[in-house]
Amino acid sequence: MPHAITVEDVRAAASVIAGRVLETPTMPAPGLSDLTGATVFVKHENMQATGSFKERGALVKLDSLTPEERRRGVVAMSAGNHAQAVAYHARRLGIPATIVMPVGTPLVKAENTRSHGAEVLLDGETLADSAEHVARLVRERGLVLVHPYDDARVMAGQGTIALEMLAAIPDLDDLVVPIGGGGLISGMAVAARAVRPGIRIVGVEAALFPSFCNAIRGEDSPIGGQTLAEGIAVKTVGRLTLPIVRDLVEPIVLVDETLIERAVAAFATLSRTMAEGAGAAGLAAMLARPDLFAGRRVGLVLCGGNIDARLLASVMVRELERDDRIASFRITTGDRPGLLGSLATRLGQLGANILEVSHGRLFLDVPAKGVTVDVTIETRNSRHTSDVLTALAEDGLNPRRIGPSGLSETAY
Amino acid sequence: MPHAITVEDVRAAASVIAGRVLETPTMPAPGLSDLTGATVFVKHENMQATGSFKERGALVKLDSLTPEERRRGVVAMSAGNHAQAVAYHARRLGIPATIVMPVGTPLVKAENTRSHGAEVLLDGETLADSAEHVARLVRERGLVLVHPYDDARVMAGQGTIALEMLAAIPDLDDLVVPIGGGGLISGMAVAARAVRPGIRIVGVEAALFPSFCNAIRGEDSPIGGQTLAEGIAVKTVGRLTLPIVRDLVEPIVLVDETLIERAVAAFATLSRTMAEGAGAAGLAAMLARPDLFAGRRVGLVLCGGNIDARLLASVMVRELERDDRIASFRITTGDRPGLLGSLATRLGQLGANILEVSHGRLFLDVPAKGVTVDVTIETRNSRHTSDVLTALAEDGLNPRRIGPSGLSETAY
Repeated sequence: MPHAITVEDVRAAASVIAGRVLETPTMPAPGLSDLTGATVFVKHENMQATGSFKERGALVKLDSLTPEERRRGVVAMSAGNHAQAVAYHARRLGIPATIVMPVGTPLVKAENTRSHGAEVLLDGETLADSAEHVARLVRERGLVLVHPYDDARVMAGQGTIALEMLAAIPDLDDLVVPIGGGGLISGMAVAARAVRPGIRIVGVEAALFPSFCNAIRGEDSPIGGQTLAEGIAVKTVGRLTLPIVRDLVEPIVLVDETLIERAVAAFATLSRTMAEGAGAAGLAAMLARPDLFAGRRVGLVLCGGNIDARLLASVMVRELERDDRIASFRITTGDRPGLLGSLATRLGQLGANILEVSHGRLFLDVPAKGVTVDVTIETRNSRHTSDVLTALAEDGLNPRRIGPSGLSETAY
Repeated sequence: MPHAITVEDVRAAASVIAGRVLETPTMPAPGLSDLTGATVFVKHENMQATGSFKERGALVKLDSLTPEERRRGVVAMSAGNHAQAVAYHARRLGIPATIVMPVGTPLVKAENTRSHGAEVLLDGETLADSAEHVARLVRERGLVLVHPYDDARVMAGQGTIALEMLAAIPDLDDLVVPIGGGGLISGMAVAARAVRPGIRIVGVEAALFPSFCNAIRGEDSPIGGQTLAEGIAVKTVGRLTLPIVRDLVEPIVLVDETLIERAVAAFATLSRTMAEGAGAAGLAAMLARPDLFAGRRVGLVLCGGNIDARLLASVMVRELERDDRIASFRITTGDRPGLLGSLATRLGQLGANILEVSHGRLFLDVPAKGVTVDVTIETRNSRHTSDVLTALAEDGLNPRRIGPSGLSETAY
């Protein structure tokens, strides 16, 4: 099957969007280079007005409509970045936009889309139900569907990212690109291979949603589940995107939730930028398969930055816990007056910072007249944590680690 | 008094740092433009390897040392961005670096600086004690002090930011620049006025630390306190920086803690980038004085992004609370079976999302056989919050708001 787009389509898309979406920077990321052993460059699509690359394809599609189509308006089905992108550019073009979201979509997402002037319909318990509603709007009201990925103009729009990255850094060895429905990677692959034929295009799927892996390898791995990378949690491959991915992308790396979390945290701490799960998937792939990238010049697309701040914070705290730089432990002891004071002093001597203390007398599993003190400390590193706990054990305090799975029996 | 530097010094500094610190992007910020009513451009110095602009001045200073001075090494006093900048570039140049930090510095800051190869000395209960220790190291071991601001080479290095911003966006009306010791703003002011004489240089100080306001206006406002913008919490103005600020900066805007918080949250939600308090001070000034900036082309320096993730999250949650999009309330009622279930259903009908529920029977101020339920909900906006609470009141549930200062008596 011939590919749905060529590099000429992508070049035409680039002139459509010029001056209307941001030409985001492609920046060296020294912290991520140190972390991965590669030379990493990041394309900051999270700087777009609505926080993701989706504006490119949406604008190219909207710009292609006839006056009559513009008058009738457009419809899109999305609870995420595509919704905001369509709403934002439809308003700028004076095109009425209707966005269908499943019931139960977080209010902030619906509200953000409304704030760009779109009509938001919360309808359908599932995406399939919502799809039925969209089909009805197309049929009955003549609205034009702006598909999130399986549309040649949308694909060409997303492909402009590759042109910009290779204009900024012409000698990239790899582009590492998240795959949801395949719109981003198919557009980028067509453009990049035309400009730089030897470049490798590495795809990334969430391990819970290996749709393209299944389709290309003829496998039948289960698809579904709760992923931090909801932006690429797509169950069906695109009819137009699949042939391009099959021909131009190799390998596809699957990334599990832990690595997606670590990548989100790494962007925050090492590049001071907010990546949503899907936006961090490329970096997660580098963490999953460092052997694939060592010593190479790698271009990552930070394709979206719309992550809830509370979620970002909990991801980062879990990362510190994994590094053993935040540790919680319980001390159970006779209710000796002054225990808390002397414990605090001792932790200070040992160089640990106290983050939280909870002091309880009421738990039923505590001996009468005993107390439990749960303490969360911050330390320099894993070794320091272990030294602190050993010292408390030598003081006779018998600290027991509290991990994500509860109280540990580990003795120090 | 003649100024300590000229634009030629800044141009020389630019050639020293070329290719050795990042030329960070100056990007249009559509979300911030909508927020402020100005056309906002942001210089992303938080993308530097160590997360702040401090690398520029530090590198220019380090590069100027004689071979003999390099052999003996350098010393700096800082618990923050200056420490990391000096450590990072000293290691790249093979210069031993000693960083003195006050006792009680957060471990993560000491550890980050150590990870760049510097020797970290935790010494001194206060900055003044630490300063004494630094003076001794200079005297006894011949170390060269890298001052964080009051040094012509450091000032010239920081000034390169203005050259880059005006090369990217030549027709800026304003530069809005945070003031700590004045190194950044004095370097930038000298460079910017030489390149674009009509440009306005607006300074920003934390309201708790109005050192330059005091010095320039001959005032004696109190200085000190806990500020989110610890990077500009400086009590003494620079001997070299003050004359430049006095001559070239007007006005200086003071920003209170609430506005600094709002600016940090705005960078995160509208630009998906992490700003520490000092890094967000420029935006805070635009929020404090929108009249000064309406309709103008304004360049902000996002000068640092090293903010703790937990702190960022709590700032953002408080922002939602201020917008009344997160609201907590208490219901006290007879312990009717099924209350929680019917309350959850009712909130769902009203379009509110439940974020947290705590259900207690033990509080002493509850009537016997009564229960309290504390609920935190997310709503679309302030009006929606009010509608939800009114509806619950009409159901006879008598919700009482719980605010930051405790339980409110407001009836709905």
